[in-house]
Amino acid sequence: MEGFFLARDIVVIGVSDFPDNLGRLIVRNLMDFGFRGSIHLVGPKGGTCMGHRIRGSVSEIRDPLDLAVVLVPASVVPDVLAECGKKGIRRIIVESAGFRELGEEKIGLELKVKEILRRYRIRMIGPNCLGVVNRGTGLAVSFFPLARDVPLGGISVVSQSGGVGVMAINFLEAENLGLNKFASIGNELDVKESDLLEYLGNDSETGLIYCYLEGISDGRRLMNGAFENRKPIIFHKSNNGEAGSSIARSHSASLSGDDRVVDAALKQCGIIRVKEPGEAIELLKAFSLPAPKGDRLAIIARSGGHAVIAADAAEEYGFRLPPYPDGFFDLLKAKSKANVIRFQNPLDLGDVYDIPLYRTLIEKTMEREDVDGVVLLHSYQGSLDVEESHRLLKSLTELITRYEKPLAVSIFTTKGELDLIRPGLSFPIFNDAREAIRSLARVRDWARHRPVAFSVERPGGADPSGAGAELASSPRGVLPPHKLGAVLEAYGIECIPWERAGTEEEAAAAAERLGYPVVLKTAEPEVIHKSDAGGVCLNIRDHVEFKAAYDRIRRLGPSMLVQKMSAPGLEWLIGGRRDDHFGPVVVAGLGGIYVEIFNEVGIRVGPVGREEAARLVDDCRGARLLAGARGRPPLDRRSLEDVIVRVSWLLSDFPEIRELDLNPVNVSETGCRVLDWRASIGGTTG
Amino acid sequence: MEGFFLARDIVVIGVSDFPDNLGRLIVRNLMDFGFRGSIHLVGPKGGTCMGHRIRGSVSEIRDPLDLAVVLVPASVVPDVLAECGKKGIRRIIVESAGFRELGEEKIGLELKVKEILRRYRIRMIGPNCLGVVNRGTGLAVSFFPLARDVPLGGISVVSQSGGVGVMAINFLEAENLGLNKFASIGNELDVKESDLLEYLGNDSETGLIYCYLEGISDGRRLMNGAFENRKPIIFHKSNNGEAGSSIARSHSASLSGDDRVVDAALKQCGIIRVKEPGEAIELLKAFSLPAPKGDRLAIIARSGGHAVIAADAAEEYGFRLPPYPDGFFDLLKAKSKANVIRFQNPLDLGDVYDIPLYRTLIEKTMEREDVDGVVLLHSYQGSLDVEESHRLLKSLTELITRYEKPLAVSIFTTKGELDLIRPGLSFPIFNDAREAIRSLARVRDWARHRPVAFSVERPGGADPSGAGAELASSPRGVLPPHKLGAVLEAYGIECIPWERAGTEEEAAAAAERLGYPVVLKTAEPEVIHKSDAGGVCLNIRDHVEFKAAYDRIRRLGPSMLVQKMSAPGLEWLIGGRRDDHFGPVVVAGLGGIYVEIFNEVGIRVGPVGREEAARLVDDCRGARLLAGARGRPPLDRRSLEDVIVRVSWLLSDFPEIRELDLNPVNVSETGCRVLDWRASIGGTTG
Repeated sequence: MEGFFLARDIVVIGVSDFPDNLGRLIVRNLMDFGFRGSIHLVGPKGGTCMGHRIRGSVSEIRDPLDLAVVLVPASVVPDVLAECGKKGIRRIIVESAGFRELGEEKIGLELKVKEILRRYRIRMIGPNCLGVVNRGTGLAVSFFPLARDVPLGGISVVSQSGGVGVMAINFLEAENLGLNKFASIGNELDVKESDLLEYLGNDSETGLIYCYLEGISDGRRLMNGAFENRKPIIFHKSNNGEAGSSIARSHSASLSGDDRVVDAALKQCGIIRVKEPGEAIELLKAFSLPAPKGDRLAIIARSGGHAVIAADAAEEYGFRLPPYPDGFFDLLKAKSKANVIRFQNPLDLGDVYDIPLYRTLIEKTMEREDVDGVVLLHSYQGSLDVEESHRLLKSLTELITRYEKPLAVSIFTTKGELDLIRPGLSFPIFNDAREAIRSLARVRDWARHRPVAFSVERPGGADPSGAGAELASSPRGVLPPHKLGAVLEAYGIECIPWERAGTEEEAAAAAERLGYPVVLKTAEPEVIHKSDAGGVCLNIRDHVEFKAAYDRIRRLGPSMLVQKMSAPGLEWLIGGRRDDHFGPVVVAGLGGIYVEIFNEVGIRVGPVGREEAARLVDDCRGARLLAGARGRPPLDRRSLEDVIVRVSWLLSDFPEIRELDLNPVNVSETGCRVLDWRASIGGTTG
Repeated sequence: MEGFFLARDIVVIGVSDFPDNLGRLIVRNLMDFGFRGSIHLVGPKGGTCMGHRIRGSVSEIRDPLDLAVVLVPASVVPDVLAECGKKGIRRIIVESAGFRELGEEKIGLELKVKEILRRYRIRMIGPNCLGVVNRGTGLAVSFFPLARDVPLGGISVVSQSGGVGVMAINFLEAENLGLNKFASIGNELDVKESDLLEYLGNDSETGLIYCYLEGISDGRRLMNGAFENRKPIIFHKSNNGEAGSSIARSHSASLSGDDRVVDAALKQCGIIRVKEPGEAIELLKAFSLPAPKGDRLAIIARSGGHAVIAADAAEEYGFRLPPYPDGFFDLLKAKSKANVIRFQNPLDLGDVYDIPLYRTLIEKTMEREDVDGVVLLHSYQGSLDVEESHRLLKSLTELITRYEKPLAVSIFTTKGELDLIRPGLSFPIFNDAREAIRSLARVRDWARHRPVAFSVERPGGADPSGAGAELASSPRGVLPPHKLGAVLEAYGIECIPWERAGTEEEAAAAAERLGYPVVLKTAEPEVIHKSDAGGVCLNIRDHVEFKAAYDRIRRLGPSMLVQKMSAPGLEWLIGGRRDDHFGPVVVAGLGGIYVEIFNEVGIRVGPVGREEAARLVDDCRGARLLAGARGRPPLDRRSLEDVIVRVSWLLSDFPEIRELDLNPVNVSETGCRVLDWRASIGGTTG
């Protein structure tokens, strides 16, 4: 990718003399950002643009070229690409719209483009994009004017949408946060988001990444990239709902996945997901500060009200407020005007009208070993304390560097003041105490959380060849229960003892062998909700009850399962499915009506090992019941985690399993046994 | 209260010649806001301030005075108040700090103040506050300089904290939202928040109220005020946690209540609670627009990305996006530059470079009968489309008035542009699409929701004198189960048939009378968790089982209850407690481990009638199970609601009941019967 960002000799194709020509705006951006390489222009009508001659064709340019930026009608794009290929250009940005985002009928055009890329071994960004910016070299090839006053810094931005990308740069400029590199990637016909994220992950100039996407092109690659490279990625994935996906298909030709899987997958690999632009900016600010190394915060405010709001937020987001040591405030007490303020943490300085003294106080607080971060809530009005406040704020920059701790500053003042002071500060300003504390907590949690990469060790006793043989001999669609039972057993997943029966005699004999009490249930594959259809009879205690149960269930067909009745325990659900974007997805949670009503499950992309399975269980509030409520003995949580690991491997090894439901799984004090199971195979789901 | 806001002849007490005298800043604010009444100054040292002579005492002033503003050391306040009282001043604002917020030892001083207020029939705001502002008359008596450029409008602000109040006015100024009245109320020694909220609720100049409190002085009065006067109140109640409450006690001498009750109570009476300043501003913006009358939104964006984000938000917040009618876009198609945009809702205008045409399009959209509101996401850069954009935006004001629909505008642009354009607009600018849509949804929901005042009709069959007699003869502490059983029955709350037994013979006879199967449980009041202690035996089928059960439970003591075993049903919990701030609080939710793990209950302040009880049930996700899941017959939801109503009346009629737990309550197809009950009486809770 560095061929795009470090290009020094570039050609812009599609420039003309006409004032509303968009190619001219590309040249304008290059000028505005002070591009330090050479610029060549091409356009069929010739002429000049900002002192550069516009040539008729790329072939007329003698110098070698690193990068071409193309903004011509879509239909002409293939020819232009071929010309560039012949000229030896291997990096091309196509900004033109008019491809798949307008409908499936344009796919032919895209195939043509792909063929040319292959032929000349060209890497292409776009089409339907604003291209890239390298703030350090001045390479800025957007056809939409960008905020040229955005400072140079460590934040890089990848956006599928040009509009959202432009907005992101505007926000950085407004918040005085430094941009490093930017890419608007559009339809991603060739270069994908992961190409860029992996490049930026290794880019020493980039410290923090903001990514806006409407669709994820390869979820597993994204996750693996994040597992390998631990740099904070603030990730805004939109296009989550029905309504959103209809426009996204036309806008960026992307399809939306199941949003809950996206949530879980990003969390699993340590990518920080945000739901709105404001939240992204908030986090970009917080991640520009050193991460708090612990939970101990000091809050210094100039108003008791702000101190109270901050203390609420600190508690809500898991921070503690250590008390100040004795004598700490001796210095202040002499300066307190009416002696009407209590010295404590959170500290209300409202009565101390000596702003230079605040600096001493803040520094002494930063210095303390029992403080992991400081929140400063300064307030002043444009008509009072202005100069002292500016001096105070400017003097704080070096404290952050010196103590390697976050100093999160929020300033309450009158209109226009923030714009005056912000350019002189090298730290972000938070909108209020809650924003500061909430986002510091997210930085802290991110720094603490160690993502665990996909498992590479299949659990002992899992036998892919045995399971594969069962699956190979099964039809597509709903897997017959005895087949699935065998597959589960091949993976070391214990089912309650069961037998298959095709006649009353077989069933009765099976019941005797298993030993009463037993469960009888239909095994007819068409019956989907077995209980609702009257296809399940629990706790059959003898053959009189057996006979009655058999007759009832027989109406649904002769195929049945006889199972041993399970001992009491806690019902969990474990299941999963094959996700188009992320592959094998495993799901678990408290079963029964809990799942239906509270809909609270943990989700992971597999295969997972024991550690990640334990985290999955912890995601469910129902996990508390495993520890043994009210003096009852604890249940066998380890075996529950073990089943989750095995299910994730099963789904991972056999992509043809589209959906799997083990529900209920009985978790007892001594193990974990599947009571009912169901799966569908191949493209046709049940 | 209008004596405070409409005062014309005022005296400021505590002014001196010294440059750091805070009283001078009060005079400065009056000047800055252009106060149109007469100003008198008092201070022991005499001198002048901004051309006004400072007199030694109030008694030296000949003219009659409406209002005194006092900023003198706390210890002198009583004398100053008495002097004002003698002079005939009946409205006083005490801004001085140094009262209860410093500790309990200052309560004596407060009692002295209260005595003087009573003697002279003075109403007082404060102490420890910034006083009031009436933007219309220029009355602004804060000793802290306020944002004088805040426009005049319909928003009034009540804040317990001065600092948060100042911030609120700064925010209004920054967002170009109009202030009407402001009060910083501090310790609320006399005038309470409800005095002000009720006044502003009836104030014709106030359309919208923002209130920041750290404690609620009288919850029921607050609720009754809101029931009576339907004006939107944006309510920020902080001081919710442990850490927060320790500073609030010292800051505004307020105590925090149970935050979940506050949440429920505010929702019940239609007050809109916010959790942070940013959320308040967002809602003040949205409530400045007409409320959407329905769910149909049109989204017009200049970038596909913004359109996708907006469509996601619309779906998430319950809006629909009706398609545009055929032919609507004929006008646009001719102007589309490269013909690369799809015309749909949400609409992406990225390809239409004719900004004046946007006006036509927006107007034609506002006009449509199938559109309840429009979200406009405009973007332009400071280097392009500036004048056209300004013209477009200014031309939109009249559309909102003409069509009485919200037009929520968000503008993405470069630094400084918003500050340039905002003063010329009479509508708010939202930070992004999600903020606009989320807050429009809250306005819509607020406008739709009709709060139901407290019930005034005791349900049929509830017999307060019968219940009262039982309670009067009971000791404080945990109520004996048979006593509580009788109280519940007096209120028409049906318990499972039960009898009390003190010996084995009595218990056996009761079991025979009730008929097996029965339940035996200890009735010893010291046993709190009966099941955990082995004090409950369910489903006793005959006297052999009875004998065994009796022997087991006997160890806990001889007092027992014998109950009929209940038929299967759904277990709910219904309970409540007496809240210090709001009075009787009723709670209900799915029982059993649902309550322990998911902690999801509905809460209301009582007494409630059937309609509110039904809303309470709807607040619980478990309510779905009442409708009859998967073909099962529906359960008797009406009788569940009925028990909730009766419980709320019982708690309301008998404040001595501190806590009540009916858990479980069995909801069956034909009714609702309490299976276990427990209550504590008086100050000592069990």
